[in-house]
Amino acid sequence: MKNRIGIVGGGQLARMLTIAAKQLGFVVTVLDPTPNAPAGQVADAQIVGDLNNETAMMQLATHSDFLTLEWELANPYLLGKIAQKGIPVNPSAKTLEIIKDKYEQKLFLQKAGIPVADFVEVKTKHDIEHAGEKFGYPLLLKAKIGAYDGRGNFLIKTKQDIAKGLEKLGSTNLYVEKFVPFEKELAIMVARNTNGEIVTYPVVETIHKNNILHITLAPAPIEKTLAKKAEMLARKTMQQLKGAGVFGIEMFLTRSASFHSDKSSERAGQAKVLINEIAPRVHNSGHYTIEPCITSQFEQHIRAITGLPLGKTTMLTKAAVMVNILGEHERKATVEGLEKALQLPGVSVHIYGKKETRKERKMGHITAIGDSLEQCLRSAKKARSYLSI
Amino acid sequence: MKNRIGIVGGGQLARMLTIAAKQLGFVVTVLDPTPNAPAGQVADAQIVGDLNNETAMMQLATHSDFLTLEWELANPYLLGKIAQKGIPVNPSAKTLEIIKDKYEQKLFLQKAGIPVADFVEVKTKHDIEHAGEKFGYPLLLKAKIGAYDGRGNFLIKTKQDIAKGLEKLGSTNLYVEKFVPFEKELAIMVARNTNGEIVTYPVVETIHKNNILHITLAPAPIEKTLAKKAEMLARKTMQQLKGAGVFGIEMFLTRSASFHSDKSSERAGQAKVLINEIAPRVHNSGHYTIEPCITSQFEQHIRAITGLPLGKTTMLTKAAVMVNILGEHERKATVEGLEKALQLPGVSVHIYGKKETRKERKMGHITAIGDSLEQCLRSAKKARSYLSI
Repeated sequence: MKNRIGIVGGGQLARMLTIAAKQLGFVVTVLDPTPNAPAGQVADAQIVGDLNNETAMMQLATHSDFLTLEWELANPYLLGKIAQKGIPVNPSAKTLEIIKDKYEQKLFLQKAGIPVADFVEVKTKHDIEHAGEKFGYPLLLKAKIGAYDGRGNFLIKTKQDIAKGLEKLGSTNLYVEKFVPFEKELAIMVARNTNGEIVTYPVVETIHKNNILHITLAPAPIEKTLAKKAEMLARKTMQQLKGAGVFGIEMFLTRSASFHSDKSSERAGQAKVLINEIAPRVHNSGHYTIEPCITSQFEQHIRAITGLPLGKTTMLTKAAVMVNILGEHERKATVEGLEKALQLPGVSVHIYGKKETRKERKMGHITAIGDSLEQCLRSAKKARSYLSI
Repeated sequence: MKNRIGIVGGGQLARMLTIAAKQLGFVVTVLDPTPNAPAGQVADAQIVGDLNNETAMMQLATHSDFLTLEWELANPYLLGKIAQKGIPVNPSAKTLEIIKDKYEQKLFLQKAGIPVADFVEVKTKHDIEHAGEKFGYPLLLKAKIGAYDGRGNFLIKTKQDIAKGLEKLGSTNLYVEKFVPFEKELAIMVARNTNGEIVTYPVVETIHKNNILHITLAPAPIEKTLAKKAEMLARKTMQQLKGAGVFGIEMFLTRSASFHSDKSSERAGQAKVLINEIAPRVHNSGHYTIEPCITSQFEQHIRAITGLPLGKTTMLTKAAVMVNILGEHERKATVEGLEKALQLPGVSVHIYGKKETRKERKMGHITAIGDSLEQCLRSAKKARSYLSI
């Protein structure tokens, strides 16, 4: 039986994937440049090496019947080379190619008839000015590749900010996007296995701070029809995108119809859901699934990439709230306050085992489960206030 | 912060303890003689060594702020020596001392006023004959130390079996127990933390085959008053026993009152619960807790031994059934049928990563969660029938 999984990257996503894979009896090897990485601590073995290093990647391949990744910027050439050896790589280099260039991703979604914010490729200051005239301000200037957690994004409030934006992001591989005056940010985790079977998790609300995910409310406190709409969009996206694994789909919910030039069936003032971004991997906004969902996003991903059937995504509690534990210091990581945090009923704490804490670094997360979002949010926030790392 | 846990033993119990500890951010080292043991695969490190080897145990101690065990027969002298270094050892050598000698355990329970089957120490054939006259046949001949999963027990049906029993178990350190004509076997997991806080899990029914746990039904299909009685007995036992950690308490439920010489408030013919045995550690009959309970027995044990507050034990589903995956072959372990088993909704499969399968060896387990015991039992048994290892 093929039971060896290789994971490109050894951070917290790989760590939680590894734990799920080990429970199912897989043998797991991770590749990460940092010795004793979060995932290396729980895996059968870690190869210490750079994710772009061909030797290291090929070594990982020799330990893998299935290859997957926690990092969408993994080298597509190397992934393709591994796939050519007959080792299933999921998500595939092709899927990653579509997703990792955010401009290409937007084009792909637009072509598939999936609503997105207006956007246009820009090469010069003049291009941006032109977009400003067309879409109005504020505008978001974005790097096509490598942007996440707020890095690679710049908000152009007026024409005067353009030069500053170009200076910050460089002047190549850029596009601008019309700023969406969203009411809420939503996200949904979707899984697709190698047989094309698709399942969706509940739609959640995500709350960001400094462009980093801060809180997830599950399920999102929105009307059922909107949740249904978000789910359908996610499903449609996955049908187009192909590829196996769990994907995180981030969305905007807006009540204004003025943001979008596509005159669809929506009337002005009606609620609308549009897709912001796809992550081709398990995602921070799906961490809440570990406690309340029958199958966590991590087990689901392992099932999806190894050709196993997908599990049920139902939540066993009425509500769950996830709060990230972001670093507050620059020092050796030390968890304090765990005792007080775990006194709160229904609160689980996950610590990722990173040796060094840095400001805003994802060091762990808290999940509170219970009967109402209000109660869970209260518990999760309280637990967060007790913890220091 | 003290965050290093050492575990004596590296089998499936240690493996599931390690996973729970890692999620909370602990650094885990296990000691086991088999390289790459089930727990070694998920721990930060494994020391390969015999559990009775002083050097190996002391090496484990140098990596531990807290020490615990998956094996109640660990050397009490070495555990005491580690405790003297100021490292909390739980369960303590003292608690283990009471429990590991099953005759002493029974005396302890009897003294505490907790109902147990009648028993008496025996040294000679004549002693056993005498017990047979007093208690009637059948009788259970038991080794005081080292008996589990049916090993070390011998059923004496008539006087003629006595010689055979003595031949099988040797003639030292024995006792006999009146055979209890039980209606059901029950079990309950109880946790006690270093502050003396006690929580109990739901009472479950356990079904054995060849003296090995085969199926757990959670919660046990018994009257609420009986469940309450079982819970109270478990709580009373833990109040007497002291020690921190999760303990598995096995019980008999019988409708006959004739088994017991203690004339308590029970009238003849009434249902009665008596304690069969205590395991001073997480236990196979508590594996079901991983999926439906807010806090699994494994996380609970980690919380208990590290001085953290205990978590809620509530089940989030109406029912859960656990079926053990016992080996059917003598060969290199190979999991087959996972794909079919995971198609069943609500079914989780745990594989322990043992390299060699042997007949009756515990290789993994299945948990099915759902709305009724009948449905869960059906799913779990079906999943079991699909799997081969």
